[in-house]
Amino acid sequence: MRAVDLIQKKKEGKKHTKEEIYFLVDGYTKGIIEDYQMSAWLMAVCFCGLDKDETAWMTQAFVDSGEVLDFSHISNFVADKHSTGGVGDKVTIVLIPLLASLGITCAKLSGRGLGYTGGTVDKLESIPNFKCEMSKDEFMKQIKEINAAISSQSPNLTPADGKIYALRDVTATVDNKSLICASVVSKKIASGANSIVLDVKYGSGAFIKTKEEATELAHLMIETGALLGRKISAIISSMEQPLGTHIGNSLEIIESIEFLKGNYQKDLYEVTLEIVTKTLMAGGFCKNKEEAKQKIDESIKSGLALKTFQKIISYQGANPDIINDYSMFKKANNSYEIKAESDGYIEELDALKIARACKLLGAGRDKKTDKIDYSAGCILNKKIQDKIIAGETVATLFYNNIEDEKLNEAIKSAKQAIKISSTKPALKELIYAL
Amino acid sequence: MRAVDLIQKKKEGKKHTKEEIYFLVDGYTKGIIEDYQMSAWLMAVCFCGLDKDETAWMTQAFVDSGEVLDFSHISNFVADKHSTGGVGDKVTIVLIPLLASLGITCAKLSGRGLGYTGGTVDKLESIPNFKCEMSKDEFMKQIKEINAAISSQSPNLTPADGKIYALRDVTATVDNKSLICASVVSKKIASGANSIVLDVKYGSGAFIKTKEEATELAHLMIETGALLGRKISAIISSMEQPLGTHIGNSLEIIESIEFLKGNYQKDLYEVTLEIVTKTLMAGGFCKNKEEAKQKIDESIKSGLALKTFQKIISYQGANPDIINDYSMFKKANNSYEIKAESDGYIEELDALKIARACKLLGAGRDKKTDKIDYSAGCILNKKIQDKIIAGETVATLFYNNIEDEKLNEAIKSAKQAIKISSTKPALKELIYAL
Repeated sequence: MRAVDLIQKKKEGKKHTKEEIYFLVDGYTKGIIEDYQMSAWLMAVCFCGLDKDETAWMTQAFVDSGEVLDFSHISNFVADKHSTGGVGDKVTIVLIPLLASLGITCAKLSGRGLGYTGGTVDKLESIPNFKCEMSKDEFMKQIKEINAAISSQSPNLTPADGKIYALRDVTATVDNKSLICASVVSKKIASGANSIVLDVKYGSGAFIKTKEEATELAHLMIETGALLGRKISAIISSMEQPLGTHIGNSLEIIESIEFLKGNYQKDLYEVTLEIVTKTLMAGGFCKNKEEAKQKIDESIKSGLALKTFQKIISYQGANPDIINDYSMFKKANNSYEIKAESDGYIEELDALKIARACKLLGAGRDKKTDKIDYSAGCILNKKIQDKIIAGETVATLFYNNIEDEKLNEAIKSAKQAIKISSTKPALKELIYAL
Repeated sequence: MRAVDLIQKKKEGKKHTKEEIYFLVDGYTKGIIEDYQMSAWLMAVCFCGLDKDETAWMTQAFVDSGEVLDFSHISNFVADKHSTGGVGDKVTIVLIPLLASLGITCAKLSGRGLGYTGGTVDKLESIPNFKCEMSKDEFMKQIKEINAAISSQSPNLTPADGKIYALRDVTATVDNKSLICASVVSKKIASGANSIVLDVKYGSGAFIKTKEEATELAHLMIETGALLGRKISAIISSMEQPLGTHIGNSLEIIESIEFLKGNYQKDLYEVTLEIVTKTLMAGGFCKNKEEAKQKIDESIKSGLALKTFQKIISYQGANPDIINDYSMFKKANNSYEIKAESDGYIEELDALKIARACKLLGAGRDKKTDKIDYSAGCILNKKIQDKIIAGETVATLFYNNIEDEKLNEAIKSAKQAIKISSTKPALKELIYAL
């Protein structure tokens, strides 16, 4: 078998055999197949696609390239969740304490942010001394003791995906559904969960732009899971405006803490509830959304969810008192208020433009090696449909010492994100559960 | 400008600017753009194409990446010819002495063979001591003194094409018309010719399979030449059966010598005449094919063409007596005759299958570093339409010490190439002049 022949085969739109997919994935991981051959093949895949079998084989080849975690000695129901990435998406941070407080074993591996969408690991590390890099043993031990741990991804899991993802990132081959599916599903399988809920986001602030594409991707991931013997469920959620009100690393942790104290935005609550429902139902822990809602409301009300988050904070090396003392977070020196220019209702809060502003302020990275300013970001004082009076603040930007040019660009982008209409706009459907 | 954005742009089917094409070509040549980015872009080009402007810019960027030869102090009419590659294609070897004998300045840069089609340089080097590697000064001097030189390509000409061609070869991105055009036309422009005749071959033994595709490629190359101020003309010729009767390096030189002695196959003569006609007419040296035919027939009859070839042989380091003593060539130790299995007419002599047999016998290379057996190859005792009696020899294979497995495979391939029909088949049109 020669890589060049397999590239040609895919270029002609033909279907690979399982052996061919393994040859490509293993050969590339071991350095036998060169970067330039893999990137040409990936581009051919972007044009000709992979069918369901090929996608499942690729996913399994990714899993087989590394270690697979096994929690069977801890629990026979291990939950995991994955978001395809959104703006202000702090669902994981509220979900894990909630599920753990309900007795669900949560083994969460998360990534860092790149581009416009933030990473859970970066957000958590905005809590001083919070440690996400943990060994497999530390991860296992914490899960056994407190039901939950949130760790950065181990390079021992799906190394093939790690290498191929890095290549896709620099060769404009990120957006193929089969490649996305193999990357996401393989990581979830290797991390040992047996119930996986996916949050597939679409809209301006997500890399998938339409609901139809998001639905297609969700179905592909569910079917791939089924072909490989894992129960995957999914929700489709809109990313027209940021989720919740806070965007930026420490700001999102603060909003998450407030959530667990019972002070939450409706949209963040709805997405969280939907994922809790899917998870609890998958394990037979509840019958419907009503029951799931009762459970999480109770956990929030009793303070158990918040206490569970404190336990996680404490186990992962940080001071749990931070939940009552936000001054322990690094604070931004400067802020800038974006004011409404007319009376009316908020019609648009473009998630991508707001994310772009936050990245310019220092909340995100362009390159993996860029440093993040944890305190930078944006608080939305209003959300879509909210009434507004000219001169009132729509959003507040937070930043430290940045160049004037970047600041001006950030302000411009944030201003462009906001549209005000004289009549109250309809709100687009937030969640579409499959 | 970032390479990844340009890959994305082409992937979306958008047109590049001239600056973007230069950024890609120059960046890659200088090692700023990585192999894996260039190969992803090349694959996107295979799917989305380059338009005429983009093709011309790429061609010019290739030319600009290196040296451009200038013969203006020697002649104001310098002829060059290029074949897209065929089986048994020794046109260059008879054409250059013929044209030079007619007073035309010929500056011929040729390549080595790879895959199924042979290279003129390899064929000439089957003449003991014949030297194709020459410096620019040696090349110029020989052309000035005897009107012709045949040199292997200098790495100083179109280095961008050299680097990109090597990458295309291993990433299944060879067959895009714009990429082929830029590669061929840039080399011809850089080699300093002002009249270029292209022989675009199609059929089983060529990498272009249909006449329509060959015509499209020819038109693109003519238009690219015109956009860059060079006069390019082209013929389209069929490669259903090998050209002439001899396939293999020294065998083809022997057939070429016989040609110049007046013993030629009709098909080889026709293609050669067509190219001579185009060349002479481009320079105003004849009015039509009839006049061109008179001139070459005269040159062959008078022995001038053969003497000119001897001069070239002598200038390039070898013994010109070889034209009368074929024992000076390395000789194959073994031969195998393929016999007709029934009476009838030769209906098919599949060029690709015969080329495959010759390569297995040692006449070609798989990798650039493979060694060639100059004496290996095949002589066709019959051509399409020839009458044959069962048991008569259709083709003879020549080889030295090769593994039985390879020999058997070669014999099998050669046998499969031959089809005999009970009725005389029609002969497909050989040449289609544009």
